[in-house]
Amino acid sequence: MAVNGVASLEAVLHALEQGERELVGHLREAVAIESVSNDPERYPECVMMSKYLVERIQALGGQAKARSDTGTTDGPGGSRVPVSPIILATFGNDASKKTVCAYGHYDVMPAALSEGWDSPPFVLEETEELFHGRGTSDDKGPTLCWLAVIDAYNKAGVEMPVNLKLCFEGREEAGSDGLEELIGLEMRSEGFFHDVDFIVISDSGSLGAKPCVTYGLRGIAEFEFSVSGPADNLHSGVYGGVAREPMTDLIKVLSSLTDEKGNLDVPDLNAMVAPVSEEERRLYEDIEFDPVAWAKASKIPGVNGEMTKENVLMRKWRFPTLSVHGIKASSDYKATCIPATCTARFSIRTVPKMEPKAVERAVEKHLKDAFDTLDSCNQFTIDDVLVSDCFLGDVNDNNYSAARRANKAVYGSEPEFIREGGSVPIAISLANITRKSVCLLPICGPADNIHGPNESMLKKNLFQGAKVMAAYLVEIASA
Amino acid sequence: MAVNGVASLEAVLHALEQGERELVGHLREAVAIESVSNDPERYPECVMMSKYLVERIQALGGQAKARSDTGTTDGPGGSRVPVSPIILATFGNDASKKTVCAYGHYDVMPAALSEGWDSPPFVLEETEELFHGRGTSDDKGPTLCWLAVIDAYNKAGVEMPVNLKLCFEGREEAGSDGLEELIGLEMRSEGFFHDVDFIVISDSGSLGAKPCVTYGLRGIAEFEFSVSGPADNLHSGVYGGVAREPMTDLIKVLSSLTDEKGNLDVPDLNAMVAPVSEEERRLYEDIEFDPVAWAKASKIPGVNGEMTKENVLMRKWRFPTLSVHGIKASSDYKATCIPATCTARFSIRTVPKMEPKAVERAVEKHLKDAFDTLDSCNQFTIDDVLVSDCFLGDVNDNNYSAARRANKAVYGSEPEFIREGGSVPIAISLANITRKSVCLLPICGPADNIHGPNESMLKKNLFQGAKVMAAYLVEIASA
Repeated sequence: MAVNGVASLEAVLHALEQGERELVGHLREAVAIESVSNDPERYPECVMMSKYLVERIQALGGQAKARSDTGTTDGPGGSRVPVSPIILATFGNDASKKTVCAYGHYDVMPAALSEGWDSPPFVLEETEELFHGRGTSDDKGPTLCWLAVIDAYNKAGVEMPVNLKLCFEGREEAGSDGLEELIGLEMRSEGFFHDVDFIVISDSGSLGAKPCVTYGLRGIAEFEFSVSGPADNLHSGVYGGVAREPMTDLIKVLSSLTDEKGNLDVPDLNAMVAPVSEEERRLYEDIEFDPVAWAKASKIPGVNGEMTKENVLMRKWRFPTLSVHGIKASSDYKATCIPATCTARFSIRTVPKMEPKAVERAVEKHLKDAFDTLDSCNQFTIDDVLVSDCFLGDVNDNNYSAARRANKAVYGSEPEFIREGGSVPIAISLANITRKSVCLLPICGPADNIHGPNESMLKKNLFQGAKVMAAYLVEIASA
Repeated sequence: MAVNGVASLEAVLHALEQGERELVGHLREAVAIESVSNDPERYPECVMMSKYLVERIQALGGQAKARSDTGTTDGPGGSRVPVSPIILATFGNDASKKTVCAYGHYDVMPAALSEGWDSPPFVLEETEELFHGRGTSDDKGPTLCWLAVIDAYNKAGVEMPVNLKLCFEGREEAGSDGLEELIGLEMRSEGFFHDVDFIVISDSGSLGAKPCVTYGLRGIAEFEFSVSGPADNLHSGVYGGVAREPMTDLIKVLSSLTDEKGNLDVPDLNAMVAPVSEEERRLYEDIEFDPVAWAKASKIPGVNGEMTKENVLMRKWRFPTLSVHGIKASSDYKATCIPATCTARFSIRTVPKMEPKAVERAVEKHLKDAFDTLDSCNQFTIDDVLVSDCFLGDVNDNNYSAARRANKAVYGSEPEFIREGGSVPIAISLANITRKSVCLLPICGPADNIHGPNESMLKKNLFQGAKVMAAYLVEIASA
């Protein structure tokens, strides 16, 4: 980094510090908009959130387009609506500079007080150390940091060292409908994504207290299937014993997916996973991680397998897993009925070598075979499949090097290079379609409880994270 | 029956015919009151329904008490409230007459348009042949018939041949809280139930088109259990593979309860069931029943085991069965979470020789053993158990003979003597505590779809059923 660059960055970082309360105010406004993308009834709130961001981008001097033309989704009252707007924004168009595209998402997971929140989930709560509220960490906080960085460059009177593009979507928690299509469209037409040199994504968290750069993500394959038989829900006294019950069939099929310990037990899937090499095993040695402290902080009663760093991290990062998210029945829970139709939703987190189409085929075959084994007169249907690949970046390329130096500039020490158990399907779409390097620059913490109740973000992570983003722009400019 | 009795009965039956539209009007009023007993929020509607009945009883000249002093239950907004009033009514107190107690219930199962109803469930719909609406068959229709019978005796100017007592409860679909206690209290204090000679219950249906008298009912044992572990719902990407998932444990436990065909597979329970004797098998030979037509009319895609009369009836009446009614998760169905707590509700229909306490012990042991086998760090709890015995009456006693003759008087032919797969727990409580004969006099049909959507009652069953009740009072008077 040139001396001049250092001085300029210091001015920007100072401006970021001056603007911290303003950032908090924006976070409060954003959290209050209940942009829950997987609830069709809250589509209007997703649109409202996109308008809020477009107005802010324009006020900061950016060009912004809100694109809804590449897909449709379920809207209020059973309607179909265009996908929540995907915001494509541009700051600067200087052919002598590198062009960086930062991705974020403004939609959030559902949240309700009844699920264990200590305060209303859509009202920002502030303690000495934390911000509480849905989206503070995933991903409204990081998304707003990018805008704070631009604001700081403006206020410090420092010219941005790169052309900065922003891609903020509103369907990340619901399958990113329309985004992959839009990226393809904008590549083929030599549009928005065509001149991007590097892509950076802030939508994950660090492993522990140390800052991290993330080079791997698990993929996700979501499935929903149903078993139905009787035309109507039946009285369990009148029909019990005679009618073949969809729920017991469904339970047998679900049970076939895992072994007694809860491990994924679909042989065709497990066979795809690469064995752990000695070289890979050594990568884990350098990572600071205390599995006992982690389990305790996570408030889980134990871990699958041994309580060792290697076992826990490998189970999080490099082995597949299956979670059953819910089971629905067509009859009232308290009624002593035989439900006529039962539906289950589960997902599998996938790892390198598990090719999405092969995963889809293997799971569908397993489900159908498991149902066929039951020799049931009921009907089995697969209702929904959503598959996205996992991601592995090249930690030695310029993008990762810039991310490493940016962290060092702000924190004074090397970041840890980690993988992540969660899925950011768009990372792989961006990498595959644009063929550019994608780097994940997490600014959130491991205890943020994203997707669960009492989602939070450490104040210092939000404020330092914005600084790392500002420094990254300087570092990537010279890459 | 004396000639005089015949003439009197004819006048009463004529009055019943004259009053048919009035009965329909009352059924319409009763269906409109959403007295869903297992929804605490609708406790006020249950109380309203009890008031409606008390007013009608008093208008007909009866003495009525509404008793809420023998139990409490969940009320609106998390409150505890007295049980919905149990109506104890008396018509006549002539020591020279027999005293008959008729039981009915004014509460209903939940119902919602979204569960497949063709019209609003709490609005009586009338077609040429049918009444549609929640409670038309189970059990508001039959309950109102008793009042129509009293009205007809009054209007015909015929003295009732017995002292008639009515016991109408409002918690039948939710465990009959407080009723057993009340029967015991009224027996010990030589109160309401003390001088009853015969008990008659109209809360079941015929097997086919032929009128029936029911001498057996399956019992029911309901269970709810939970598996919990993490303090909060977890992100399935961050924790999947490491955290032991309550849902997969719960599915394994549920799966252990049935075999691949959906048959109850709890060896300790199956061992309790008496083998089928040759004598018993012969009882089935006389019954008119077409299993193919029955399955078709029931709109079920097939039956467990062979499509024979014996297999289907035995599975309905004399073998136990297990139904899983629903599974709840602490996280949103669409969220890719690991739910922190999962809960399942199931019931077992029980048959003679399955003693309730032994059933409870065997099921609890099976559940705990199944969970222990998983060697899980999660926590297993049994949250709710509700067990009631099955019922077998003596088809040769005076009560059943009167029921047989009453059917013959109205229909001109012998009724079929059947058992029923459903449970009327109060039948066994009444039999056990009062030590009097309990006879089930069904007036409903096999296609009424009680507990399910589009519950209905054939018009002719309602009107002829009231006549059988009127004739039964004459027949039992001379027993």
